[in-house]
Amino acid sequence: MLNSLIKIKSQLVKTMEKIAGAENVLSTREELYVYSTDSTNITNNKELAEAVVFVETTQQVSEIMKYAYKKNIPVIARSAGTNLCGACLPKKGGIILDFSKMNKIIEINKDNLICKAQPGVVVETLQKAVEEYDLFYPPDPSNLKVSMLGGSIGLNSGGPHTFKYGATKDYIIDLEVVLYDGSIMHTGCECSKNVTGYNMTQLFVGSEGTLGIITQATIRLIAKPEAKKVLLAYFDSLEDTSKTVNDIISNLITPSVIDLMDKNTIQTIESFYPSGMLTDKTAALLIEIDGFRSNLDEQYEKVIQICKNNNSSYIQTAQTKEEEEKIWISRRSSFGATAKLAPNVVTEDVVVPRENIVKLVEGIQSICDKYELKTCIMGHIGDGNIHPNIALDLRNQKERENFLNAKKELFELALSLNGTLSGEHGIGCEKSQYIINAVDPVCLNAMKQIKKMFDPKNILNPNKIF
Amino acid sequence: MLNSLIKIKSQLVKTMEKIAGAENVLSTREELYVYSTDSTNITNNKELAEAVVFVETTQQVSEIMKYAYKKNIPVIARSAGTNLCGACLPKKGGIILDFSKMNKIIEINKDNLICKAQPGVVVETLQKAVEEYDLFYPPDPSNLKVSMLGGSIGLNSGGPHTFKYGATKDYIIDLEVVLYDGSIMHTGCECSKNVTGYNMTQLFVGSEGTLGIITQATIRLIAKPEAKKVLLAYFDSLEDTSKTVNDIISNLITPSVIDLMDKNTIQTIESFYPSGMLTDKTAALLIEIDGFRSNLDEQYEKVIQICKNNNSSYIQTAQTKEEEEKIWISRRSSFGATAKLAPNVVTEDVVVPRENIVKLVEGIQSICDKYELKTCIMGHIGDGNIHPNIALDLRNQKERENFLNAKKELFELALSLNGTLSGEHGIGCEKSQYIINAVDPVCLNAMKQIKKMFDPKNILNPNKIF
Repeated sequence: MLNSLIKIKSQLVKTMEKIAGAENVLSTREELYVYSTDSTNITNNKELAEAVVFVETTQQVSEIMKYAYKKNIPVIARSAGTNLCGACLPKKGGIILDFSKMNKIIEINKDNLICKAQPGVVVETLQKAVEEYDLFYPPDPSNLKVSMLGGSIGLNSGGPHTFKYGATKDYIIDLEVVLYDGSIMHTGCECSKNVTGYNMTQLFVGSEGTLGIITQATIRLIAKPEAKKVLLAYFDSLEDTSKTVNDIISNLITPSVIDLMDKNTIQTIESFYPSGMLTDKTAALLIEIDGFRSNLDEQYEKVIQICKNNNSSYIQTAQTKEEEEKIWISRRSSFGATAKLAPNVVTEDVVVPRENIVKLVEGIQSICDKYELKTCIMGHIGDGNIHPNIALDLRNQKERENFLNAKKELFELALSLNGTLSGEHGIGCEKSQYIINAVDPVCLNAMKQIKKMFDPKNILNPNKIF
Repeated sequence: MLNSLIKIKSQLVKTMEKIAGAENVLSTREELYVYSTDSTNITNNKELAEAVVFVETTQQVSEIMKYAYKKNIPVIARSAGTNLCGACLPKKGGIILDFSKMNKIIEINKDNLICKAQPGVVVETLQKAVEEYDLFYPPDPSNLKVSMLGGSIGLNSGGPHTFKYGATKDYIIDLEVVLYDGSIMHTGCECSKNVTGYNMTQLFVGSEGTLGIITQATIRLIAKPEAKKVLLAYFDSLEDTSKTVNDIISNLITPSVIDLMDKNTIQTIESFYPSGMLTDKTAALLIEIDGFRSNLDEQYEKVIQICKNNNSSYIQTAQTKEEEEKIWISRRSSFGATAKLAPNVVTEDVVVPRENIVKLVEGIQSICDKYELKTCIMGHIGDGNIHPNIALDLRNQKERENFLNAKKELFELALSLNGTLSGEHGIGCEKSQYIINAVDPVCLNAMKQIKKMFDPKNILNPNKIF
């Protein structure tokens, strides 16, 4: 009896405790169960890791990789676990490296317009820290209050600001990476302008921990925009909505945000977080412009006029901080409101060239109607990047099946419109079966060869992307 | 006698003629001699290719690669040959693919903010074509009137606009590439936001034709800035010059151009192309700001004030097109003027974090003094990217040796200041011997493995980069 209560630690757990300290290793079934999930609620992952290690130094990561390589043990990097594609789920057991303790901002250098940070820094913390220096780190995934830099780099996160300012990849100029055999490599240098050899940095950004473990990043920063203004314009047709986006750009204005919400999204927000949104409209555009204070009003008026010219039936402007906040709160509530429609929400992520945006949105609506799925469509229309938020009860087998069928058709639709599977959420294990339809077969083969080169034993986050 | 006059065509030449048509193949010694050089005048290349082929289709490139792979023949992609690092010199014979006939702009799509073009399009032609649509393709290498897209992608060209707008890499979202075995691959898609698998596009940008042959590019475009203004500010110290750059950015202004000219550059320009530049000053900054017309004057005044606060001893402003042109002509004359100092000019290209810019410029001056080299230093100070233009007589063995010693010390200096070998000109065969000092050895090894993977027989532009 006594004997069975003594937990017998595996060799692996003992080794992890030796490398990282017993206080930094989790290995009970209960603890491992927590790490068998992430924010991807559609995934039915039953696999458990053998240990979770809160790493504190690059050296520890290197030692763990050396051990894992020798013993053929999978290693999965994880920061906040907020991804939506099953990117850090243990599919074949192994070791999960939790980076939440490697959360230092190492340097902010205003003259060089760079900062250096560890993977466990929360994205918003980083943003706010550089803003203290009047600098700007634009990538702003919706979960930036909790998501961390490591995952953000691993998945090349975007966000509303991507339309004007680019995604995470556009700000990473050097990475410290631990390779499969424990060797430590720097991919770039402190200069954002650098053509000394191949662009190894960008091979790791978006590679979802499948090529190496990122332990530090050097980030390019830009000057902070002086001011910004926001408005919400309603439309009675998707064509008018889409044409408005084109006309704004034709007028040489590049909004810092240009997001779309469809009727279902508006109605759902208004049902649960009423803020006076107009529920009879087909769509709304949230448009934020930024730049110099002195001519922001002029741009703002121009955007309003363009919306009107495209039959916008109502424009909610914001002259005060409170009015601005009211608009943003509506937009930010879209996920939370959808979550009230059913026990679960699955957020999808597809992207098409913008000329096909109306076809995409209407196509999604029709697929979801066909499968009787309640769907609120929103997204970054400027980039052609659309997120259907699908509310359902995943315990209901029929609904789950319907969702999986709809998902398949959604990807077929995006690909038929010259788009692709993911604009900013990544592939993980959730979309890996579809990548064969999305990526040129010669290119897919080259990707697989690169994977093999950087991970000959397939221990780095296995079963992801491919 | 008659027999010796009949040129015996090699099997290779006959095959090229069969694939591309006899009218598209050069193979006489005289013709091949022309292709044994490029704009890199320091290189003493004696090697000749066996044939030059003016390719017209991707299919032809594929067939040529298949043949070359079978027969172990080097293949070198060349567009305008305007590079400065010996990037397209035949170092081991083989076939040069001249892309000047593949010079079509295939599509400009304003709604999708993209264009598609072939490698032989002249960069300025592309820029002007998209400007017709009020769109903007920012990369502007100094040779943009002759340089072509293919080389520009192969070397990841920058230019004065890179500080605000990024380099070529920031605008390429999909490449059609012919691989070593003739297979044709697409690296991305028409969406600039794309995280579907690894970023293969960026592996090819800047790879100097060593991993595959680029036959078409899809380019992301942005809205054209409405207006711009330029000024030239003189300083009596490099510290003041450098501090001015920092202060402009601290004031939330990101100039579209912020270029430096040192005293030698100013004096040399004034000697040969007199335009009233002040020859007693230590340095000058050419600053261009762009954006919306309505607040440009305000920004302009702010920049002027910042220059004054940093002891600028004279500021040449421009209120008319002619005055603007006068400032730009001075700047653009810097290379041509230096070329009048001696039979040859070699333009170097190093980059350091901006906090080290004064040490870099002073260090270069001192190295060039030591080796008695006439040097005009200019460059993109905002990016920390400096070009010493070194005037010398390359026929003079002593001067040549001095230059090579100075070059070695220049790279040591840049590396000691946390910089690197090249910001925008590339490595080619001119800097390949130094890459071992600049790139992390683990990373260099990974680059070489990637090279081996994409070019198992080392036939793609051999002896470049490594």
